[in-house]
Amino acid sequence: MADTKTTEVSANRSFGGWQKRFSHQSNVLNCQMHFSVYLPPAAELGEPLPVVYWLSGLTCTDENFVTKAGAQRVASELGLILVMPDTSPRGEDVPDADDKAYDLGLGAGFYVNATQAPWNKHYRMYDYIVDELPSLIQQRFNVQPKAAIAGHSMGGHGALMIALSNVKRFSSVSAFSPIVNPMDCPWGEKAFSHYLGEDTSQWQQYDSCELMRQQGQFLQLPMLIDQGLADDFYQNQKLAKPLELIAQETNYPAEFRYHEGYDHSYFFISSFIEDHLRFHAKHLSA
Amino acid sequence: MADTKTTEVSANRSFGGWQKRFSHQSNVLNCQMHFSVYLPPAAELGEPLPVVYWLSGLTCTDENFVTKAGAQRVASELGLILVMPDTSPRGEDVPDADDKAYDLGLGAGFYVNATQAPWNKHYRMYDYIVDELPSLIQQRFNVQPKAAIAGHSMGGHGALMIALSNVKRFSSVSAFSPIVNPMDCPWGEKAFSHYLGEDTSQWQQYDSCELMRQQGQFLQLPMLIDQGLADDFYQNQKLAKPLELIAQETNYPAEFRYHEGYDHSYFFISSFIEDHLRFHAKHLSA
Repeated sequence: MADTKTTEVSANRSFGGWQKRFSHQSNVLNCQMHFSVYLPPAAELGEPLPVVYWLSGLTCTDENFVTKAGAQRVASELGLILVMPDTSPRGEDVPDADDKAYDLGLGAGFYVNATQAPWNKHYRMYDYIVDELPSLIQQRFNVQPKAAIAGHSMGGHGALMIALSNVKRFSSVSAFSPIVNPMDCPWGEKAFSHYLGEDTSQWQQYDSCELMRQQGQFLQLPMLIDQGLADDFYQNQKLAKPLELIAQETNYPAEFRYHEGYDHSYFFISSFIEDHLRFHAKHLSA
Repeated sequence: MADTKTTEVSANRSFGGWQKRFSHQSNVLNCQMHFSVYLPPAAELGEPLPVVYWLSGLTCTDENFVTKAGAQRVASELGLILVMPDTSPRGEDVPDADDKAYDLGLGAGFYVNATQAPWNKHYRMYDYIVDELPSLIQQRFNVQPKAAIAGHSMGGHGALMIALSNVKRFSSVSAFSPIVNPMDCPWGEKAFSHYLGEDTSQWQQYDSCELMRQQGQFLQLPMLIDQGLADDFYQNQKLAKPLELIAQETNYPAEFRYHEGYDHSYFFISSFIEDHLRFHAKHLSA
């Protein structure tokens, strides 16, 4: 059956599988979008494969992880499909920050459903990641129903927040250098006040610390978090640590690892992505 | 001893070692240059380590291989220092192709010493790679005297041509999708006619096929060449294959591998770079 909703725009052989890029019209985001997919060699054998969604950070597109993380080697070995969405709606009709700031607007969707004008017409990344994209993936590829989700920085926030809000959809979650408490850090406060307005009670549903505090004892997912200690944003954006404190309070069995000398870059991600994919593969097959 | 000739401009922790970038004033190229170095964890143990030089292809800088090849993981394990130079002289004073073509001038030095104006003032990449850069590396880092050399496309040409011209300096050479016969392909003919003039007898010293034909029986280096069969440039730039025919004529024990479905991109390089680094490590320690 021909799939009319997604168009393959590139395909590169990689570690015996295929690194592909697709475009499609997003009904949720009201614009043309791209996403990338790695298909391991096992995708040609006919059995449904597990999927790991990767959510990228500020300024990224669907391509940064694809070119820089070195994840295909491990996904090839483990038989994982990797799905990399973009980080915001795109296109000339989509509003951007007035000053083209890197931390608001294009490349900075923060994985929320905006309620405020002018953002609310396109910036509905939560629904895109939770509903529309998985539907497209299930329609186009032979995948298992449960997935894993991971991300970096703003995408670490997205992965944790989406997993904590949809615990039955995911078998595990992991993050590098995640924004865990967007209600109480400069990046999060800026984005949430623009996208969600000044009523902070509307922010809580998108704050991983709040979500874990509310649900921690009841709904638990395997969780792995890596944080570099030479990361310039570690202190001033309150990455990782606030969530660890709540995990301790709520006896949430998350593993937090802190790495001397590592920074916020893809050099950090590439050094430890293998651990994350092996972690997800174990829980996906459990 | 403080090193006054090279300045460290960035350092990122990577696989337990360091991915660094340096700038320096090149006497040979008559301009400011950058190069990148990966230092594996073993660099902190005090013993001299083997070096693998990586020469990149058209349009690249010293950074493409650093971010896209996934080589640090393997170099970390094997205790190899990786050195990535830029692909041409750089700066506002350095002439570029009149039409800013990607295959002449900036980003397209072709690893030769230009003899023709306006190129001859800066475009002396052969001397830079063979003499100036190794001197800087030996001065700044604790390295073994023999090195390995590898590269991609134009850089595959550079690696093979430089190794064949300096067999006692290198323990092994490898290439991905190399231009092997620049005297007889569009990229090479264009570059060589501009840099070296119309007298093709001056071109032979930089043509790997010519060099192997002249020396093949006498001076042999371990050689590994990977070529993708879905590479758009494979046929029309005569990559890899002409050298294999001469290797067969001269009984040169080179290994040529052809890969179904792989193209000219870094997805191809990253899929097989581990094989190349293990090949070099074996011969560097022999």
